[in-house]
Amino acid sequence: MSRYAIGLDYGTNSCRSLLVDLDSGDELGSVVFPYPSGELGILTDPADPNVARQNPQDYLDGLVEIITGALAQAKEKRPEFNPADVLGIGVDTTGSTPIPVNADGTPLALTPEFSDNLAAHVWLWKDHTGHAEAEKITEIAAEMRPQFLAKCGGTYSSEWWWSKIWRCKNAAPEVFDAAHSWVEHCDWLPAVLTGTDKPNEMACGICSAGHKAMYCEEWGGLPDKEFLAALDPALADLRDRLYDKAVPADVKAGGLTQEWAEKLGLAEGTAVAVGAFDAHMGAVGSGVKEGTLTKILGTSTCDITVAPNTKDLADVPGVCGIVDGSVLPGHFGIEAGQSAVGDIFLWFVHNLVPDSYGASVDEKFINMEKAMSGQKPGATGLMALDWNNGNRTILTDVRLSGLLLGQTLHTKAHEIYRALIEATAFGALTIIKRMEEYGVRVDEVVNTGGLAVKNATLMQIYADVIGKPLKVAASDQTCALGAAIFGAASSGQITIEEAQSDCCQMRDHVYEPIPENQAVYEELYALYRTLHDAFGTSEWSGKIDHVMKDLIDIRQRQRG
Amino acid sequence: MSRYAIGLDYGTNSCRSLLVDLDSGDELGSVVFPYPSGELGILTDPADPNVARQNPQDYLDGLVEIITGALAQAKEKRPEFNPADVLGIGVDTTGSTPIPVNADGTPLALTPEFSDNLAAHVWLWKDHTGHAEAEKITEIAAEMRPQFLAKCGGTYSSEWWWSKIWRCKNAAPEVFDAAHSWVEHCDWLPAVLTGTDKPNEMACGICSAGHKAMYCEEWGGLPDKEFLAALDPALADLRDRLYDKAVPADVKAGGLTQEWAEKLGLAEGTAVAVGAFDAHMGAVGSGVKEGTLTKILGTSTCDITVAPNTKDLADVPGVCGIVDGSVLPGHFGIEAGQSAVGDIFLWFVHNLVPDSYGASVDEKFINMEKAMSGQKPGATGLMALDWNNGNRTILTDVRLSGLLLGQTLHTKAHEIYRALIEATAFGALTIIKRMEEYGVRVDEVVNTGGLAVKNATLMQIYADVIGKPLKVAASDQTCALGAAIFGAASSGQITIEEAQSDCCQMRDHVYEPIPENQAVYEELYALYRTLHDAFGTSEWSGKIDHVMKDLIDIRQRQRG
Repeated sequence: MSRYAIGLDYGTNSCRSLLVDLDSGDELGSVVFPYPSGELGILTDPADPNVARQNPQDYLDGLVEIITGALAQAKEKRPEFNPADVLGIGVDTTGSTPIPVNADGTPLALTPEFSDNLAAHVWLWKDHTGHAEAEKITEIAAEMRPQFLAKCGGTYSSEWWWSKIWRCKNAAPEVFDAAHSWVEHCDWLPAVLTGTDKPNEMACGICSAGHKAMYCEEWGGLPDKEFLAALDPALADLRDRLYDKAVPADVKAGGLTQEWAEKLGLAEGTAVAVGAFDAHMGAVGSGVKEGTLTKILGTSTCDITVAPNTKDLADVPGVCGIVDGSVLPGHFGIEAGQSAVGDIFLWFVHNLVPDSYGASVDEKFINMEKAMSGQKPGATGLMALDWNNGNRTILTDVRLSGLLLGQTLHTKAHEIYRALIEATAFGALTIIKRMEEYGVRVDEVVNTGGLAVKNATLMQIYADVIGKPLKVAASDQTCALGAAIFGAASSGQITIEEAQSDCCQMRDHVYEPIPENQAVYEELYALYRTLHDAFGTSEWSGKIDHVMKDLIDIRQRQRG
Repeated sequence: MSRYAIGLDYGTNSCRSLLVDLDSGDELGSVVFPYPSGELGILTDPADPNVARQNPQDYLDGLVEIITGALAQAKEKRPEFNPADVLGIGVDTTGSTPIPVNADGTPLALTPEFSDNLAAHVWLWKDHTGHAEAEKITEIAAEMRPQFLAKCGGTYSSEWWWSKIWRCKNAAPEVFDAAHSWVEHCDWLPAVLTGTDKPNEMACGICSAGHKAMYCEEWGGLPDKEFLAALDPALADLRDRLYDKAVPADVKAGGLTQEWAEKLGLAEGTAVAVGAFDAHMGAVGSGVKEGTLTKILGTSTCDITVAPNTKDLADVPGVCGIVDGSVLPGHFGIEAGQSAVGDIFLWFVHNLVPDSYGASVDEKFINMEKAMSGQKPGATGLMALDWNNGNRTILTDVRLSGLLLGQTLHTKAHEIYRALIEATAFGALTIIKRMEEYGVRVDEVVNTGGLAVKNATLMQIYADVIGKPLKVAASDQTCALGAAIFGAASSGQITIEEAQSDCCQMRDHVYEPIPENQAVYEELYALYRTLHDAFGTSEWSGKIDHVMKDLIDIRQRQRG
């Protein structure tokens, strides 16, 4: 008998489905639904570039389209396909992406009174309006509850749960007052599918709770009311109307309601897993396990691995979060990331690459890659810091900026492009070194995301810099695949490991470090690290006049 | 009775004449002659980018064309013009630009045997083939004769006299052996015009001797033979065939020969002044005097002022040269400069500015200037170091490179252009501060060169950064004008001061510092200086993690 699962991946601009055969790993159906509202699905405010909201109706409209579409494709590809053989549905979303809801669990934005109120809509992960609140939370936590910060890398972010809710209270009190409670996007969708109306009955995922809401069993779940009251008494009150317990995503949130089963063409009662964030499910879809770091290489990166959940894993300074069960049950999920990777290349190509490299963005990238792929490491003489959007790991500091040095009167755009790739590779290595330093094993790196698939020059540079084999996940949709694996596991009929071993395949080509490049990159990394520490930490003190001269020496040597 | 003078300005790619009315300052004739040989007048070697030579025949061909042309223009403009009223001719050239000559004073390149030998041609100022020799000279001088280095800023350059001649000995011994002697371009032309054949009888200018050949009366003229022998015994031998005494450029080298008088259409015996370098004569043509710094703002800059030649003027560390009489007789001439200014902007526009700013280089510059002229100081959040071509003053270090920091994902090309302009302004201020620190008065700055005339935004930024009024010389040809003033003075019929007061006029617009901009630039300069000292000096040690954060603070404040 065949076994299938459906994964739903709710991204920033669209949602997509993946219907997978759990035994062969065959991907039988997949549909993308671009969110129709706003600009590429994002509601913005011309007066404030920090605002990024979404319309929850887009999520519901997409739900029907992507599931029915995937089922139809599966039926066409494999006529014997039977929707009753779908073991379960898993959901991942962006996050922290909280939704203000009324007592019936209905998003305020879907009620007539608030349909035009931006603050009543979904607060998308990249909404940064709560930056002042985030700073205040960090400040108060540092004083009252330093343990809260230790688990999230030392700084609470404006992208996270409490910053946004508190911001709503301060900036749009009418919405905050009308909201009975708040629900993460990834918890709300399973609640909808399983007909769970009461907000505090909605199954809450440990991934979002642990990484973004300072939830930890060590201190009894969500932050205590004394702490929340120190932020704002209204937040302490809200705690009573939130969840008590958060659970991993292999737990069944419930069964598909009859109404949704009919709408979607699936069996009533089909298992629906507890939700989690895209990157975490993407890690599972990429085959994350102990010793394997998964990297989603996109506009930014998300680096995820797991370690045994023994109590002796120290907090890892600067790492975004260490949460028990947030990736694989029974393991600490460890999340790190770089604030900008592809975004830096896009900024560069849009703003600083002349048309002599080509008319379109794609042509420019291809021709720059061609021009620089023959250069040896260090031959550009350039060194950059990958901080155009701040540094998430290991410095957790948004108040940093880009840096480029080593340019002469002959420096070309493609050489700077190479330096920017190298800078992001050095940033990636810094994360791995920090993990290893604190006892987290990293034997290999599995990559997914657009850059991993499209940019072989970048991948080889990453392998040479990181000094470990780099694999690329076979699936183009590792997040949705991970969601499908959790959906399946939540049915109790298959384990995550079993599903991973059948579904998480790698592409044939493995990027192995080239020893002579690796040696040069070790020298260059020492210079990167000097600049990194000198500009990024208050502890560093010393001399840096050797940096430009060392780069010139290496350049001369490498140019021959 | 009218009094006129002719200035001849031998640049890198062309030579030009200027015929000036010494009483009104009216410029009556001017002709440009592009050197026909090589690429834009420069003979290069595809195998070695450091090679830059010239054909002395170009100088002679140009001589006739630019003088006869200027005389014809004057005659047309003012029919009563009489060539007999030309008091004298002055010559400036690039430098150090030495020419190997035979015993008759004929450049080897003009003899059939050596006409195809690149090393037998003129070694143009920007020929850098002698870099290893320059390093060796610095090393040996530091040990044996530290006083030699103190006068030239601490480092002997590959662009200078002894580096080039020694290089010729090492790389092309057949040329070195065949050369009876070597003559600076600026000394050779007056010798030609006055019929002086014997190399050691050719009048030698103090400007080239003092700034480039380590000549100083303090130690008896040229470097002693013991020192030269330590470099190479052949150089010690050569000293016997060089000049003994160098003199200022208001001294008459001789009178025009009958042959040249006929060829040019001038009176026989017309005074020909001793030659000097373009920047030094340009300073005089810009009205340099005590308290006035003149800046030639071009691809690089040359910053020149004068101070009373009392013995209590200390050596100024990092300044290219302090030479008695090299600019104005009776004064120390003080020369400093920035290795690249306009060249940095050209590099940027050619390599990193997209066509959205315009199709041509000029359009790009104009549109970038438009886009950034409304921005307040510090609003870009960027900071650059102006070291793409090393740092001439005050660090005298070619092994430095460019730096840019503060870039975000929103940074635009015109903002970087502004940061590059500001960096060169900070570099200019660093030179002035160093001069003032050592007792050289700088009350005002007179600018000349393409950027001073064409780029009002740059000039205002410079005024705001430097904090002093910036004037722009009225003449577009201050070098040729300075040469004419020396030509006139060498006749003994007019003083330099008198000629300057009539001929050196300023444009009406004076760039005055805007106090609120000046205040912000003072803050920014402190950051520039931190980066300058941290990356450029081995003495600096400390912390720099405040730099990015300070720039972000200033950016936020200035953006309002």
